[in-house]
Amino acid sequence: MANALRLGVAGLGTVGASVIRLLDKQGNRIAVNSGQAVRVRAVSARDKSRDRGVDLSRFSWFQDPVDLARSDEIDVFVELIGGDNGPAEASVRAALESGKHVVTANKALLAKHGVSLAILAESKGVSLCYEAAVAGGIPIVKTLRESMAGNDISRVYGILNGTCNYILTRMETDGISFEDCLADAQRLGYAEADPTFDIEGNDTAHKLAILTSLAFGTKISADDIYLEGITSITTADIQAADELGYRIKLLGVAQRTDSGIEQRVHPTMVPKSSAIARIDGVLNAVAVDGDYVGEIVLVGPGAGGNATASAVVADISDIARGDLTPVLGMPARDLEDFTQAGMRVHEGGYYIRLAVVDRPGAFAEIAKCMADAGISLESIVQRRKGAAGSRGETDVTPQPVMLITYETTEVAVRDALDAIVCKGVVSDAPQMIRIEKLS
Amino acid sequence: MANALRLGVAGLGTVGASVIRLLDKQGNRIAVNSGQAVRVRAVSARDKSRDRGVDLSRFSWFQDPVDLARSDEIDVFVELIGGDNGPAEASVRAALESGKHVVTANKALLAKHGVSLAILAESKGVSLCYEAAVAGGIPIVKTLRESMAGNDISRVYGILNGTCNYILTRMETDGISFEDCLADAQRLGYAEADPTFDIEGNDTAHKLAILTSLAFGTKISADDIYLEGITSITTADIQAADELGYRIKLLGVAQRTDSGIEQRVHPTMVPKSSAIARIDGVLNAVAVDGDYVGEIVLVGPGAGGNATASAVVADISDIARGDLTPVLGMPARDLEDFTQAGMRVHEGGYYIRLAVVDRPGAFAEIAKCMADAGISLESIVQRRKGAAGSRGETDVTPQPVMLITYETTEVAVRDALDAIVCKGVVSDAPQMIRIEKLS
Repeated sequence: MANALRLGVAGLGTVGASVIRLLDKQGNRIAVNSGQAVRVRAVSARDKSRDRGVDLSRFSWFQDPVDLARSDEIDVFVELIGGDNGPAEASVRAALESGKHVVTANKALLAKHGVSLAILAESKGVSLCYEAAVAGGIPIVKTLRESMAGNDISRVYGILNGTCNYILTRMETDGISFEDCLADAQRLGYAEADPTFDIEGNDTAHKLAILTSLAFGTKISADDIYLEGITSITTADIQAADELGYRIKLLGVAQRTDSGIEQRVHPTMVPKSSAIARIDGVLNAVAVDGDYVGEIVLVGPGAGGNATASAVVADISDIARGDLTPVLGMPARDLEDFTQAGMRVHEGGYYIRLAVVDRPGAFAEIAKCMADAGISLESIVQRRKGAAGSRGETDVTPQPVMLITYETTEVAVRDALDAIVCKGVVSDAPQMIRIEKLS
Repeated sequence: MANALRLGVAGLGTVGASVIRLLDKQGNRIAVNSGQAVRVRAVSARDKSRDRGVDLSRFSWFQDPVDLARSDEIDVFVELIGGDNGPAEASVRAALESGKHVVTANKALLAKHGVSLAILAESKGVSLCYEAAVAGGIPIVKTLRESMAGNDISRVYGILNGTCNYILTRMETDGISFEDCLADAQRLGYAEADPTFDIEGNDTAHKLAILTSLAFGTKISADDIYLEGITSITTADIQAADELGYRIKLLGVAQRTDSGIEQRVHPTMVPKSSAIARIDGVLNAVAVDGDYVGEIVLVGPGAGGNATASAVVADISDIARGDLTPVLGMPARDLEDFTQAGMRVHEGGYYIRLAVVDRPGAFAEIAKCMADAGISLESIVQRRKGAAGSRGETDVTPQPVMLITYETTEVAVRDALDAIVCKGVVSDAPQMIRIEKLS
């Protein structure tokens, strides 16, 4: 057996402590199966004195993760610090520059600097592994990089943020508002005190940027992702979706189209019969459409210390075995620039919710605006408020009207909605949710 | 770049032809990404003259696959012949003995000879890859072998046979009998002319035997698998399952218990809310419960030429990259013998359908038999035949009674059913379907 692979772990939060516990438990097995012993040799964190439930006295301590990254004591640098620059970026670069393998769970770092880090890793002949960065315990990086090696991929999409999925699931099952669900999620530790990054879709976008590169052989481009969070989703939308045969999920979708590659994060209506519609609570799911394999769907925990540690340790085990895969599936220098398809040319079905003012001819005007934009309607649901007969002539409360369009373009829908607003037949900004075509 | 990796493909049916087409299409990409060119050099099949839609004139032709396996012209032997002995076994052994890597889609061969072939491969320092052998295009072998490297696994289970799942799905959605569904499946090419191997569960058992070894580090043992096919499932069972909140799936389940490892293939009631319940038609799904990662579920096409070829080519790509993983996840010589837990000690809930004779006290006797065996009942559904009031005093047709038990043991259920039959209160053999506890 070769000399032991010496690890340096930077960042000792929940995931870091779990990685150390898991290696304590399974170190022997990993050594036997990979042909090389694996040992944590040194660690780094902000606070040396904090009790993390693991004995750190066995390890060298580095106050500065960059010093750890450069240290001759280690062969693999495990970055669990987080953040897209600062010490995380500096230490990962330092590790790669000094010829060390890197394992990281840092999606923000990869979304921003993935290509340059991949080029650096490949120029040094070392691994840069990040299974834990996308969908936590789900082995989607390995699946795209290795298991689908022979496939041309047309689309990759998924539920990539457990916080959002927990909120949408609770809104549906318990019929409570977005705000109440968010408060619950925060109380249960599923959402941060400042949840912006999750609920506005940025976290999903980081993961999607990495998946896009892996799926299409393109450079990572997180900045141009179309982004729409879940804060505008109401229980009325959730109920309407249910009645119309859909569920609402925050999806990240990357898709080849005639106009380029779409990268988009938005609340999405998915048919109840689809696999993705049944993913509830904090679970994540990723689906990939390959030309030879067909559609593969992977479901599992997208976060949590132990699930993330499982992915980190799998990466360490690959390095111990000597497996060296191009970081983004193909040599990073060959990754292509790509044309990001604009959302205006996006094609699909749409759900539209309008608060229609109660006056004769209002709906006729709406129908005309849709027709003028060339949009055909698949379903129309108008719900009269209150019980039958309870509505007096003085009731001028707007009527909620829900429309489902046949396949059309985003620009047509936006034009129609602009026209509807202009005509003053709705009392509120229209709600619009895209429908994803799924098998 | 190293010299090209030279492939010999034995067996040119649907999968073999698809592998050749896929390599024609993606060969360059695989070369760039894996660092080694991949070229089919030679082929072997029974009938040289048959038109397979691919140009074979480029390749050397071997009438005998064993000659191909031994040939100095190739580095990797791709076995797509099928069968658990004969030319498939002989050629795979010949290839390994002459130091060649092997890629195979042959579950029967691995279920029977997997351990000895793995020992042989490892003694020669070559790969034996078989992603395509279990659940077709789903990357479950890689997931268990690599992505879950740090996990202790408590259970692996799945829908591993598309033919059975197609039949059960059709029985449910269309309310038609097993026999009619089977005929349809045969007409559509989803079932063989002799479907025994699929519908009796043998095919599922072969795949389960391999999964068990990968999950638990045990020797492959296909002979002792408890086996029950789907031929006894009626539309009455499917309807009752639906009413009680379940679906019926043919599952292969391997599970650690206090009595050893259970390996069982049988029709199973799964809660409608579970991920596995939503897998319809010819799709396959595999779920793995790991102590660190939690539950991972992989869904995709379990058969078909292209999906299988995708998995074969992924294996070839791993070999081209130089990745050498122990065949069954750990060195084959260290695989453990294991105690197969007998079905009598299986613990779980049970669905029981009885055709109860129409006489006073019959149900009381049944209830007593259950109580005597220590079985508590969670639900009882008795369906009176015909509309209310239409049943005359002379109607002595047996009444179908459906029971769901709380968790109990198989021996208790069998004892209770034996007693019920003895007392002559049922007119038919009782139906019994196990319920799988799923999150």
